[in-house]
Amino acid sequence: MPDEVLARASAEMFTRDGSGVSVMERPFTGDVFRAHLAHAQACLRQLLNLPDHYRILFLAGGAMHQFSNVPLNLLGNARVSAYADSGYWAKRAIAEAQRFTEVAVVARHAGESPLAAPDCAGWQLPDDCAYCHITPNETVEGIAYPSLPDFGSRHDVPLVADCTSCFLATPLDISRFGVVYASAQKNIGPAGLTVVIVREDLLERSAPNVPAPFSYRLQAEQNSCVNTPPTLAIHLAALVFEWLIEGGGIEAMTLANRQKASRLYAAIDVSDGFYNAPIAREHRSTTNVRFHLTNDALTDVFVREAELCGLTNLRGHRHIGGIRASLYNAMPEAGVIALTEFMAGFAQRHG
Amino acid sequence: MPDEVLARASAEMFTRDGSGVSVMERPFTGDVFRAHLAHAQACLRQLLNLPDHYRILFLAGGAMHQFSNVPLNLLGNARVSAYADSGYWAKRAIAEAQRFTEVAVVARHAGESPLAAPDCAGWQLPDDCAYCHITPNETVEGIAYPSLPDFGSRHDVPLVADCTSCFLATPLDISRFGVVYASAQKNIGPAGLTVVIVREDLLERSAPNVPAPFSYRLQAEQNSCVNTPPTLAIHLAALVFEWLIEGGGIEAMTLANRQKASRLYAAIDVSDGFYNAPIAREHRSTTNVRFHLTNDALTDVFVREAELCGLTNLRGHRHIGGIRASLYNAMPEAGVIALTEFMAGFAQRHG
Repeated sequence: MPDEVLARASAEMFTRDGSGVSVMERPFTGDVFRAHLAHAQACLRQLLNLPDHYRILFLAGGAMHQFSNVPLNLLGNARVSAYADSGYWAKRAIAEAQRFTEVAVVARHAGESPLAAPDCAGWQLPDDCAYCHITPNETVEGIAYPSLPDFGSRHDVPLVADCTSCFLATPLDISRFGVVYASAQKNIGPAGLTVVIVREDLLERSAPNVPAPFSYRLQAEQNSCVNTPPTLAIHLAALVFEWLIEGGGIEAMTLANRQKASRLYAAIDVSDGFYNAPIAREHRSTTNVRFHLTNDALTDVFVREAELCGLTNLRGHRHIGGIRASLYNAMPEAGVIALTEFMAGFAQRHG
Repeated sequence: MPDEVLARASAEMFTRDGSGVSVMERPFTGDVFRAHLAHAQACLRQLLNLPDHYRILFLAGGAMHQFSNVPLNLLGNARVSAYADSGYWAKRAIAEAQRFTEVAVVARHAGESPLAAPDCAGWQLPDDCAYCHITPNETVEGIAYPSLPDFGSRHDVPLVADCTSCFLATPLDISRFGVVYASAQKNIGPAGLTVVIVREDLLERSAPNVPAPFSYRLQAEQNSCVNTPPTLAIHLAALVFEWLIEGGGIEAMTLANRQKASRLYAAIDVSDGFYNAPIAREHRSTTNVRFHLTNDALTDVFVREAELCGLTNLRGHRHIGGIRASLYNAMPEAGVIALTEFMAGFAQRHG
């Protein structure tokens, strides 16, 4: 979280207003909360330059809840949906979806070292395919699609994306998507809230037996208030949206994030093989910079020494190991500079 | 929320620790969050005097998510489940459950004026009934069961309860229940978190096609960390649990709540019919005190004048009208005294 947002949250979130009520105590049916909700939606709409025929839902839970909600809400009368297997989180999405739909895996990540996102050319979608799901940025592997996939003549099939780790941090041409979702804990706010953006014409697909609080149709009809929404988390999200708007929006964030990532990848690439980033250059994530110490025996030492310097959360995902630096919007350039300086010193001491 | 909890939350929730990380930024896989989670569970276990064979789950969402999760996790091989229709929220639970199970309504609220909770004697459960669901306190109608239902020889059928509005506010003999759930926004913390307490032997019933983050079995196996749990909300809940323990636990809360409710019902009963509480005396909720102005034309005036005196959120549920005063744990006796004084003055001015 940005310092400015934490400071505002500290001052505002747990303070009683004139009538003795704090943010989290306000009834979700009351005018004050409804105004806050509308404000949060308006800010996000502005940030994304969202066309009118897309709806914003604020739902409880994380992206993993959407792994089942997507087929439950979008399958309609179809039996099959298409998924791209780009890595760890795409695989988790596929595993959940398979409880509710036949899954056709239409693309796979390629290579090993370097690893690459699935090739975007000429995806062959099955005939009666309800939608196609992608994971534009894989947080565990640190790979990102360089462009959106090409469905050939099948551009009527809605593209659905788990944008959790790149939402509001990289450009998003929403008109290319049917549904985009992102859980809050990366670039939006506290865990327990997920933003779902749905193209209006898809709402009619929501199956009648979807649990009410997870029906895209019902939640759109009732403005995310089918049941009590995570009100505190929505308030915090609005603070983040305001901070983003003040800071120049997604365009400014994208530039800053690219600069942070370039600096870090450069530090890896000039290390004469002391560090290595096993991702094809044009598929490197600007959000999750993953690299390895070529002498893996030094990885633990690296993590421990970095922590002593205040550089935390650098251990790679347990399924992959190595190092992962997550450069979410709130990470300042100074944090990356400190990391690259530490890396150079560490390489000198242990090289 | 109690003043003390708001003050602690204000000081602690959005402050960075020594390593520069605030509560909501901590990874849920890290040692610090895991210790907090264990602490929250231990506090709740102590408050409820919870036997070892019950598991505590902290799940995303609200009670309404459990309306579908209960049949999805407890139906097992059965086709039917039993529900008591005690009022508005029981009806909502039934409507959701019917998407996933045949529902036998085994008891209904009785009377009209006065209204009463379902009679607890001699419930006839269907033969192959998976569980029986009750709503011990109906927040909209303001009725509460005076005792638990009698299943006769069918004491093997697990009793399941939506305790959202009375959790930690009234005595709970958990050994009588298979599952108890409560969303946080009444007596626990911020909306978006639900506590589910499950008897261990029921975990094996969770259907394999339940969405992973809502599988009681998987969440018990993975200690509520199948996916990122609502970490900030869990931290806030722990502050409330600590406040309850320091204040003497559920026993002390029960006494205080009974005293608050008695004072308010007394003010209604001595009003010579200016106010009336349309609930049979022994079924009156100590949590949601519902009453009406016999001259209903004065209801709007009452709500407006009360708001000017800082007495907010008194309007009855839109399905029922009238007045509802919710005396959750955090409501101090002084608030009830202020309300009864206002009521007496209002009756004098308008009687």
